Amino acid sequence: MHAAVYTGNRTFSSAAPDAPSLGADEVRIAVRYVGLCGTDLHIFHGHMDGRVDIPAVIGHEMSGVISEVGANVDGWTAGDAVTVMPLLWDGTCPACLAGHSHICQNLKFVGIDTPGALQEEWVVPASLLVRVPESVPLTHAALVEPVAVAVHDVRRSELERGQKAVVIGAGPIGVLIASVVREIDADVVIVELDAGRRSFAEDVGLTTIDPQEVDAVAWVQEWTGGAGADVVFEVAGAAAAVLSATSYAKVRGTVVVVAIHPEPRPIDLQRVFWRELRLLGARVYQRPDFEEAVRLVAARAVPTDELISGIVPLGAVQQAFETLEKGGALKLLVDVAGAGETESRA
Amino acid sequence: MHAAVYTGNRTFSSAAPDAPSLGADEVRIAVRYVGLCGTDLHIFHGHMDGRVDIPAVIGHEMSGVISEVGANVDGWTAGDAVTVMPLLWDGTCPACLAGHSHICQNLKFVGIDTPGALQEEWVVPASLLVRVPESVPLTHAALVEPVAVAVHDVRRSELERGQKAVVIGAGPIGVLIASVVREIDADVVIVELDAGRRSFAEDVGLTTIDPQEVDAVAWVQEWTGGAGADVVFEVAGAAAAVLSATSYAKVRGTVVVVAIHPEPRPIDLQRVFWRELRLLGARVYQRPDFEEAVRLVAARAVPTDELISGIVPLGAVQQAFETLEKGGALKLLVDVAGAGETESRA
Repeated sequence: MHAAVYTGNRTFSSAAPDAPSLGADEVRIAVRYVGLCGTDLHIFHGHMDGRVDIPAVIGHEMSGVISEVGANVDGWTAGDAVTVMPLLWDGTCPACLAGHSHICQNLKFVGIDTPGALQEEWVVPASLLVRVPESVPLTHAALVEPVAVAVHDVRRSELERGQKAVVIGAGPIGVLIASVVREIDADVVIVELDAGRRSFAEDVGLTTIDPQEVDAVAWVQEWTGGAGADVVFEVAGAAAAVLSATSYAKVRGTVVVVAIHPEPRPIDLQRVFWRELRLLGARVYQRPDFEEAVRLVAARAVPTDELISGIVPLGAVQQAFETLEKGGALKLLVDVAGAGETESRA
Repeated sequence: MHAAVYTGNRTFSSAAPDAPSLGADEVRIAVRYVGLCGTDLHIFHGHMDGRVDIPAVIGHEMSGVISEVGANVDGWTAGDAVTVMPLLWDGTCPACLAGHSHICQNLKFVGIDTPGALQEEWVVPASLLVRVPESVPLTHAALVEPVAVAVHDVRRSELERGQKAVVIGAGPIGVLIASVVREIDADVVIVELDAGRRSFAEDVGLTTIDPQEVDAVAWVQEWTGGAGADVVFEVAGAAAAVLSATSYAKVRGTVVVVAIHPEPRPIDLQRVFWRELRLLGARVYQRPDFEEAVRLVAARAVPTDELISGIVPLGAVQQAFETLEKGGALKLLVDVAGAGETESRA
């Protein structure tokens, strides 16, 4: 079978490893589409070489069709369209015992800590499967995972219908968060420096602000009748974005830290104290988030189709990462089976 | 009447202003004791000269006895022992309308933004009064306000009976927070660099760690069975303390920002994200906090007596601040009426 393998030093190579063996509690998936995300780009850049087991097959945003089912697996059969919730928890650590298994203290992330989906045949525990309805194209199904991130972030924020949210950053996750906010009948504005990203967000019907043109804090004050936003999602990952995040929030408002910040960032704690703000970390998702994400994708309530900038063959993963690092695409899918974008599922 | 007046430039002077006039909704209080706190010390240092109206009578931790009651005031009579909840909200801003009047967007803090208690006769709206029971010495009653801060901080943290908390900093507020934690049957340890403060906390029965001697993070890990603390209270106000705070917290744990941080502080957002931590600002108090504080002081459940390092006459406010800035005392009371520590209320 064919695979794309990260060999370190900013390099993905084509490889033809043996097909993985199938355990009794596992399924074999004929992978169809794999999305490349910001974390994958971090791996490409070598930032996670201490964590991935080089040579590594990565990839965790995916869709596919079950091709073989292990002896103990119930409820799944060959031919089922699926995506995968790529979390393996130990079930025994204090976080798991407290009901937070999605952020298990020893969490393994499938596709980073264990082999991922950039291979024609992928074997995963059946417990990770999430069913993809007939109506959902497998291109769209490959975006269920990032949509689940957005659903989790919004759920964690406790944003309510009719409230107002600010999203800082209009990358794929920022746009998906804003779309989920809109879906729960709350209002949202995206603050984004980049004209191309603003334009994309506007094209899918979202309101944006260019903070270089507009005093964004004053805009939000006016928009909220002087109160400030109920929730602010920090999705940009930049130090300046973090510092600004607290200034948008209302008294007792919430700031959700979605982006990854590799180093400590200055936070305006005087504002946190003065307004009794709440700053929340939000990481990955829980199964209800994944199921809601499938529902939103099926309902076309999130702009999955629009987010897909292009689809490349498995042999072009190297070039795809080079395009992503230049900001030349929002979301690229890898067509692992080589069937192309328009091929039907059957 | 006599007063101590802040005249700027690190200076308090004795003055003899006219007694303030009494409005219909106000009471006149014969002030007995005024505690000097960290905010007062900030004023002494000139950090708040833009906010206080120099020459200024400050002071907001106090006890006294009503001497005169305005025409519209019900429920209070001359001779009642009282303390004051020193918050004036506008009742009309978005924060007030949302039920958070204690952090009104236009909050006036009595004793900072309006005249305070370092004067023999103090006139305040009757709505600010809090009754002091017969059994409580007026020296102790002057500490109800900082106890209310601690009650608010613990209540905001949602710490529960049987859980474990870390307090960073063993100043008066840190010791009071730890005492309130103990009172709700939760476990607590204080991390404190200063030997004198550690010794004081140990003397009132609290457990402390010297982070210069012990790996405090490893200690807390062991203490919590590998989970991390349920709640961390950051009361030290130092950049290093903030950076360490997140490292003590369990998955989904809470960090409460109690201290005042005049400049943005680096926070380990990777840890906030990874463990889905919650960072909460906590400021002043609400009336239930004040009432609980009176109950705790009356029950001797908090070390009010032990916290009082000394009692000085109204004419010695200048020297008292000079002692505080040298770290020469935890809590100094000013004996405004000149009656001394042992005088009974009657």
